Amino acid sequence: MLDQNSFNSLLLTYKQRVDLALEQWLPPETLNPVKLHQAMRYSVLGSGKRVRPVLVYATAHTLNIPLDKVDGIAAAIEIIHAYSLIHDDLPSMDDDDLRRGRPTCHRQFDEATAILAGDALQALAFYILAHDPQMTVDASKRLSMIEKLALFSGSRGMAGGQALDLDSVGKKINIAQLETMHIHKTGALIRTCIQMAALSSDSTTDIQFEALDRYAKKIGLSFQVQDDILDVISDTHTLGKPQGSDAELDKPTFPSIIGLQAARDKAQELHRQAQASLDCFGAEADILRTISHWFVERSH
Amino acid sequence: MLDQNSFNSLLLTYKQRVDLALEQWLPPETLNPVKLHQAMRYSVLGSGKRVRPVLVYATAHTLNIPLDKVDGIAAAIEIIHAYSLIHDDLPSMDDDDLRRGRPTCHRQFDEATAILAGDALQALAFYILAHDPQMTVDASKRLSMIEKLALFSGSRGMAGGQALDLDSVGKKINIAQLETMHIHKTGALIRTCIQMAALSSDSTTDIQFEALDRYAKKIGLSFQVQDDILDVISDTHTLGKPQGSDAELDKPTFPSIIGLQAARDKAQELHRQAQASLDCFGAEADILRTISHWFVERSH
Repeated sequence: MLDQNSFNSLLLTYKQRVDLALEQWLPPETLNPVKLHQAMRYSVLGSGKRVRPVLVYATAHTLNIPLDKVDGIAAAIEIIHAYSLIHDDLPSMDDDDLRRGRPTCHRQFDEATAILAGDALQALAFYILAHDPQMTVDASKRLSMIEKLALFSGSRGMAGGQALDLDSVGKKINIAQLETMHIHKTGALIRTCIQMAALSSDSTTDIQFEALDRYAKKIGLSFQVQDDILDVISDTHTLGKPQGSDAELDKPTFPSIIGLQAARDKAQELHRQAQASLDCFGAEADILRTISHWFVERSH
Repeated sequence: MLDQNSFNSLLLTYKQRVDLALEQWLPPETLNPVKLHQAMRYSVLGSGKRVRPVLVYATAHTLNIPLDKVDGIAAAIEIIHAYSLIHDDLPSMDDDDLRRGRPTCHRQFDEATAILAGDALQALAFYILAHDPQMTVDASKRLSMIEKLALFSGSRGMAGGQALDLDSVGKKINIAQLETMHIHKTGALIRTCIQMAALSSDSTTDIQFEALDRYAKKIGLSFQVQDDILDVISDTHTLGKPQGSDAELDKPTFPSIIGLQAARDKAQELHRQAQASLDCFGAEADILRTISHWFVERSH
């Protein structure tokens, strides 16, 4: 594992890297329709944790892939994440006013613009994967990336997870159903980051691919368990969104179903499994190891 | 041009062909999340005119491309169209209750499900283009198709056109601004149909590609001019949506800006230009010629 300072410095480097790529891929605010492009930039640029791009770069590092080969992948996945947040925040969905400490897209602009900004961002993500001239891997590998992103962000992945999430509000669900929801809603896209990064080299072996995918499944779930825990124990200022909003919305969470201590134990167990899945790698996977630790120790 | 009977029979063949493809690509209703998959199928299957798939098949016929090579393209483009209709109909957008003679998706289900169904359909369209095993053209051509669909359905195409449309309500705009809006909102996707079909063969020449793209631009606009005319002169039953809804919403249209007769003249002029753009083809383009005629003569 990396020490805290080295890891923080690396996170900053990755964040700056993807922010630059995002800045370049997003249409300028001066381009018509101006409000739509403003809304797209407002929702993507700014203060996100950039968790998914960090995973893309860390996977590239582990596989010795030059980072400029995955800038497009990092941007595309963050754009898909941003579109999903815009739509999830809408009045008919989670009805959130605050996101990353700022008004949500439909509060800053309007609902129609927020819907269209999300739609256009989804299209932009696929455009980047199809077009990015920095990516030099062969066309069939690129098609595989697009296929995975489309599958894991659609009704069998992220969008399906959000539907299950909305359907679960106010209902008694069991731990297996909660996991299924999160495996779709958050886990699918986290797996996609890592799979796409692994696909961006022609020399990734099947063993490496499978090991990374096992790791991705574990941290995808531990990330969500910790999110649920933070909604109980943290405060609004640290979270950048209202604390206790899950409970207020009567959303089932890991702490509400199995209790706070069992949720913490579960996060730690998933972290241990994630570490174990990286045993076939040496020090080159230390960033991924540290990310897993970060996921379960983070305070926001 | 084809006679009416042959043309109608061909339209039916194409419609049945794409309906079969759509049926196969859409996830089954029994798959979780059930309501989401029901909403996706409800919005795509049924009584659409299938204008865009018809254009895909007619282009394939013109270029002597076997129709099974473009089934995926026809399904993908219709799915993108269906997602855009679902979102356009939402309360914060056009707030429509009726579509193709049936309740709109958010009226039949709910708003959140309608937003997610649109999102998941967009992802499905890209999945089909990346995955379709019937498509045998090389991977780089497939990437070009995905690139075009992403570009023309995003903020620089269809989604941008819808933003311009919403922004135009209640405003005085001129004919050039109205054309710009429609070139984005409807025209971009119609060009994409034809470009993707043309890309599905390795033997399409640049001259053929350019001629077909010129044709696509003309019919993309004539289709919209006729839509605006029908909103004035037709009745709700024939249209399958409320007649006079443009005027009621104070939307600028071709008849409202240049008058009904000038709008009719414009449609005919665009039809003539579309025919002229096909001069480099022989009888193999007769279906496309007849489609242009259909676009400006149709009553719904």
